[in-house]
Amino acid sequence: MAVDAKRGFYRTPPGWGKRKHKIMKRRVFFVSDRTGITAETLGESLLTQFPGANFRRIHIPFVDNLAAAEVAAARIREAHEQDEVPPLVFSTLTDNAIQHVISASTHNVFDLFGTFIGPLENALGEASTHSVGRMHGIVDVTLYERRLNALNFTLSHDDGLKASDFDEADVIILGVSRCGKTPTCLYLSMHYDLKAANYPLTDDDFDHLGIPKVLLPAKSKLYGLTIVPEQLSRIRRERRAHGRYSTLQQCRAEVQAAEAMFRKEGIRYLDTTTISIEEIAATIVRDMDLHRRDT
Amino acid sequence: MAVDAKRGFYRTPPGWGKRKHKIMKRRVFFVSDRTGITAETLGESLLTQFPGANFRRIHIPFVDNLAAAEVAAARIREAHEQDEVPPLVFSTLTDNAIQHVISASTHNVFDLFGTFIGPLENALGEASTHSVGRMHGIVDVTLYERRLNALNFTLSHDDGLKASDFDEADVIILGVSRCGKTPTCLYLSMHYDLKAANYPLTDDDFDHLGIPKVLLPAKSKLYGLTIVPEQLSRIRRERRAHGRYSTLQQCRAEVQAAEAMFRKEGIRYLDTTTISIEEIAATIVRDMDLHRRDT
Repeated sequence: MAVDAKRGFYRTPPGWGKRKHKIMKRRVFFVSDRTGITAETLGESLLTQFPGANFRRIHIPFVDNLAAAEVAAARIREAHEQDEVPPLVFSTLTDNAIQHVISASTHNVFDLFGTFIGPLENALGEASTHSVGRMHGIVDVTLYERRLNALNFTLSHDDGLKASDFDEADVIILGVSRCGKTPTCLYLSMHYDLKAANYPLTDDDFDHLGIPKVLLPAKSKLYGLTIVPEQLSRIRRERRAHGRYSTLQQCRAEVQAAEAMFRKEGIRYLDTTTISIEEIAATIVRDMDLHRRDT
Repeated sequence: MAVDAKRGFYRTPPGWGKRKHKIMKRRVFFVSDRTGITAETLGESLLTQFPGANFRRIHIPFVDNLAAAEVAAARIREAHEQDEVPPLVFSTLTDNAIQHVISASTHNVFDLFGTFIGPLENALGEASTHSVGRMHGIVDVTLYERRLNALNFTLSHDDGLKASDFDEADVIILGVSRCGKTPTCLYLSMHYDLKAANYPLTDDDFDHLGIPKVLLPAKSKLYGLTIVPEQLSRIRRERRAHGRYSTLQQCRAEVQAAEAMFRKEGIRYLDTTTISIEEIAATIVRDMDLHRRDT
C-alpha cells in the first residue's frame, strides 16, 4: 500500500485492481499497422476471460511508420500518467523497429504478432519478410470479384425476393421473419464468400404441410434458423409495435410451426437466441460442410 | 539429408522447405473452441510473412470438449504421418485441458490464446475464468438489435434507394457504380454497427457542378471512393459485357469527374483499387473519426 499524499488516503499499487478513490476503467490500446482487426479480435477474446475488470478501449490503426509509432507511444505514456496504472496494449506490428517504440512505451505490451514470428521461422525453416501484409492487386481483384458475386447473389436473394437460381446457391436459410436470416446470409457471403439465399416462412407456408414447393429442388441446401418466441416478439416490437405480427401468441405459433417443419423434413436448424452472427455463420458452415470459396 | 529408401533419393529433413519428390503444401490447422475466426485472423496474418511457403488450411471450430479435442488431435497426427512434416497448428482454446490435448498432438502448436493469459493475469492482478467466451443473452440482444438497426438502415439506403433520413446516417459513401460502395457499407454496419448509406454518382450528377442537391444537408458525412479506371472497366464487364457502361473511355470519364467533384467540394476520398474491404472500412472510420457504436 502506498500513501497518496495529495488525496490523503492509502491507495493500492498500480495493477492491483480496487482503488479507493475511484473505480477506474483500465485503458486498453489496440495498436496495429493495418486495420487493427486482428489485434482487436484476439485482444477482446482475451479480455472476456476477466469479467471482473472494466476496460476503456482506444484503437490506433495504421501505425506503419516510426512517426506514427511515436505518436501512439506518447498517447500510451499519457494514459499511464493520467490513470496512475499502466494501460494494457495489444499490438500487431510486423516491423520490429515500430514494435520496439510501442514496447518501450509501457509495461504490459502484448506483442500478439512478434511473439509467434520466431517460432514460426523455426518451424518453416524460412525467415519472415517483416513487411506489412497487404495483398497484391491481382489476387485482390479475383477475391474481390468472388466476394462481390457472392454478395450480389445474397442481396438479390434476400427475404425470398428472388426465389429462383437456387441451383447457384451454396445454402438457403429458412426461418420466420426477424429470426436472423439476413445478417447471417450477409456474413456468410462477406466472410466465407458463399452464395447464401434466404427464404422467409410465413403463415401461408404453414397452411400446407411440408416445405414450400419452390424450395423442393434445393432441399439439400436448406438450413433452418429458430429463436425463442419471447425474444422474437421483443425484436418484432422494435419494428412494428402494434398488431398481430409482434404478439407473443403469434410469435409462438410461427416458431412452433417452423420447428415442426424442420423436424418433419429433416432440415438441420439452429436456435439463434443467444449466439452471435459470427457463431451462427460458423455453425452453418460446419454443419453443411461448406467451405470458403477461396480454399 | 536423410535417405528415403523407398523412393531411392535424398530428401531434406522435415521442415526444411524444398523436397525433391514433390512440392508439398504445408498443412495448417486452425483449432478453436468457438468459430475459429480469431485463430484464422491472426494465423493468416502470420502466414503472410512467409510468402515463399505453400499452405493447405484445415479449420476445426467448436472444439469445446475433450472428445472433440481427441478427434482434432488424431487428424493432426494423421497429417504429420501422411506429409512426413509436422503441420502448423494455430489454436485459440480457453480450456487448459483441451489445449493440452492439442499441444500434445504435434510440435509447432501455436497457442495464440494461452500464451498471453498468464501475463494478462499478472497485469490485471486477477485470475482468468478459463471459460469459453460466449456473450450472455441480454448483452447479445442489445448488441444484436443495434447491429440489425444499422444493417437495416444500410440495406434500405443502398445505391441511393432511399435518399432521405440522411440525418440518421453516420456516413454516406459516394462513388461511381461498382467502385465498392455496397460491400464497404455492409462491412461498416456489420462490423462497426454504423449506419452507412451510399449514393451512386452518375453522368446526371456530373452535368451540374457540385454535389447532388439531396446530399447538401449531410455534406459533413460524405466520404468518396474511387478506383483505377482499368479495374473498374474489368469489374463492370463482369456485370454487363457490352455497351458504354463498361468501356474504358466511359470509366475514365466517370472516375475523373467523381475525383474532380471530391476535390472541389473538399470531400475526403480513398482509392479502393488494391485494398481490401476491411481496410477501406477501417480507413473511413479513422478518417471520419467514427466510433463503433458500442464503445
